[in-house]
Amino acid sequence: MTGASQPLTAQEMMAMEHALLLAGQGVRGANPLVGAVILDDDGAMVASGAHLGAGTDHAEVAALKNAVQQGIDPAGCTMVVTLEPCNHTGRTAPCTEALLAAGISRVVYAAADPNPEAAGGAARLAGQGIDVAGGLLADAATELNRRWLAAVRARRPFVTVKVAQSLDAQSAAADGSSQWITGPHARADGHSIRARVDAVLVGTGTVLADNPRLTARALDGADAARQPLRVAVGLRDVPADAAMRGDRFVHLSTHDPVAALDDLYRRGVRHVLIEGGPQLVGVFLMADLADELFAYVAPMLLGTGVPAFQRLGVATLADAHVWRLDPDGAAAVTQLGDDVRLHFKPIAPAPAHVEKGH
Amino acid sequence: MTGASQPLTAQEMMAMEHALLLAGQGVRGANPLVGAVILDDDGAMVASGAHLGAGTDHAEVAALKNAVQQGIDPAGCTMVVTLEPCNHTGRTAPCTEALLAAGISRVVYAAADPNPEAAGGAARLAGQGIDVAGGLLADAATELNRRWLAAVRARRPFVTVKVAQSLDAQSAAADGSSQWITGPHARADGHSIRARVDAVLVGTGTVLADNPRLTARALDGADAARQPLRVAVGLRDVPADAAMRGDRFVHLSTHDPVAALDDLYRRGVRHVLIEGGPQLVGVFLMADLADELFAYVAPMLLGTGVPAFQRLGVATLADAHVWRLDPDGAAAVTQLGDDVRLHFKPIAPAPAHVEKGH
Repeated sequence: MTGASQPLTAQEMMAMEHALLLAGQGVRGANPLVGAVILDDDGAMVASGAHLGAGTDHAEVAALKNAVQQGIDPAGCTMVVTLEPCNHTGRTAPCTEALLAAGISRVVYAAADPNPEAAGGAARLAGQGIDVAGGLLADAATELNRRWLAAVRARRPFVTVKVAQSLDAQSAAADGSSQWITGPHARADGHSIRARVDAVLVGTGTVLADNPRLTARALDGADAARQPLRVAVGLRDVPADAAMRGDRFVHLSTHDPVAALDDLYRRGVRHVLIEGGPQLVGVFLMADLADELFAYVAPMLLGTGVPAFQRLGVATLADAHVWRLDPDGAAAVTQLGDDVRLHFKPIAPAPAHVEKGH
Repeated sequence: MTGASQPLTAQEMMAMEHALLLAGQGVRGANPLVGAVILDDDGAMVASGAHLGAGTDHAEVAALKNAVQQGIDPAGCTMVVTLEPCNHTGRTAPCTEALLAAGISRVVYAAADPNPEAAGGAARLAGQGIDVAGGLLADAATELNRRWLAAVRARRPFVTVKVAQSLDAQSAAADGSSQWITGPHARADGHSIRARVDAVLVGTGTVLADNPRLTARALDGADAARQPLRVAVGLRDVPADAAMRGDRFVHLSTHDPVAALDDLYRRGVRHVLIEGGPQLVGVFLMADLADELFAYVAPMLLGTGVPAFQRLGVATLADAHVWRLDPDGAAAVTQLGDDVRLHFKPIAPAPAHVEKGH
């Protein structure tokens, strides 16, 4: 806890738990998941809101509007919010000013805002005489936005690598056939990841070989409500009739993963999914730019074929790229139909986890 | 149930459950796990026994001796036993004759004996006026000796394949270094499989490259009480100072997996473990002679190196060797320290599962 002049109450604790639940209903993407609850003088929850995606109201503003809709004057109330109120003008005005204008007298937040452009909200509010307490259930709030927080701290998108392979690590048979190595459960899981990320990346070689659509789809083939940016990375041309082309398509003509991530970050992308091929995966692995790895392993042996991984610059066992099964998650190892999903994290924190922002 | 002239009693059911527990205390190997319990006229358990390995008393004889030791005359008693009493003279005399000599009046058994040389015990006993009931808890008794039963039916050893690999299916790095890809938990698990099988097989190429000991060892390096036969398979010479040599060593100078298994079966081997290298594993896979596969997958990427699997004769995806995660076992997917163990069975029953014996 930092900066609390008044002790935290049991009602505020309950309100924060509720705000975390509300936050989880938001949409992942360029902005974090945030929820907010307004408590009256008696500690009763009188209004609430959540941030529902870039360009929409921040959670605090949504909660203030919810109060007004109910005919409640939020002046003198407490705002309980899962992320430190922002202090900058982006697509929306600073939340700090909205809170001050509404006459909120106390703010309880969970996680500090790691974004150097948006941070300083707590200090700004305290400087204006508002009673501010930070850190309540901060771990839960941080976990909720783990990938987003890492991206904002590192000022590059969080990188998820996904591979689908046979047990002997082939992503296709010798003749190139690869539909389907994994079964429908695993493929649906992969599509649910596509629907959560901001951008899906493939190498231009994969575009030419497989012509993937890269849309997030349900089991019945229907497009998911939220679609990632579809990004081809590499120097080769993307055919005019490539299936991945469309209004959410970008071709980054580079082999430099740092340049690619930098470009995407400036476009508002905070979380990318790398789907292959082996060369693009290898480029990100060798640059230590992979923050997590989902491996879908099918109960199949091909012997030879198209390896899911290639040239990683490893000559001897001591130089291996070592990962660990997600030590935090219950879903480190998950059976999906006939396949197994393994969720790995880097052994050592990747650059994304090193705090650089402030 | 077959051949029962008297209905089964609740005491016999309980006695069979106890006999199954006793059976599990035996030693796996050339002979099945068997337990036996003797019930008196009132259905009380008065004696019991288990088979403790080839050359030792069969369970029925052990139970009869246990009765005599207690001063109990088994005449007129019921013998409850997990496997149909044998009817042949092997290293021990036929159990049927021991039961007849002891004056046992009723026999309740679980699983029928699939061994054509030993079968016919139930018929022999019934022909001598003994009341015989078969099939009580037969599924549990069969599961207990699943691998042994499959071997005896197919008249070849049950074949377990074990691979330890990185996620990208390398069994060693480019320079050959492989100690250790998997961690101590996974290696201990592998040693416990060695201690359960009758023989461990490696290719002569692996002997020359890695010079393995192939003994079953505890975590502290101590040899397990039971050691498998150590078998080198292949045409190349095994060096005179090879670590696997000793009194439990055999070199089978062949590339024919059928010939190798036939030779071993005649030596009393009912369960073999194939530990590599990729060429020997491939020979057994391509001959459809692998009955189960344990894959230990380490959270490591090597890119290039020594592939755990090679040339399996698969040109297109439809020809893949398809397995399934063990549908029966709770241990289909097991996290072992930092590694994951996947337990696969063939999609279609391998020849070992086809009843040939009778």
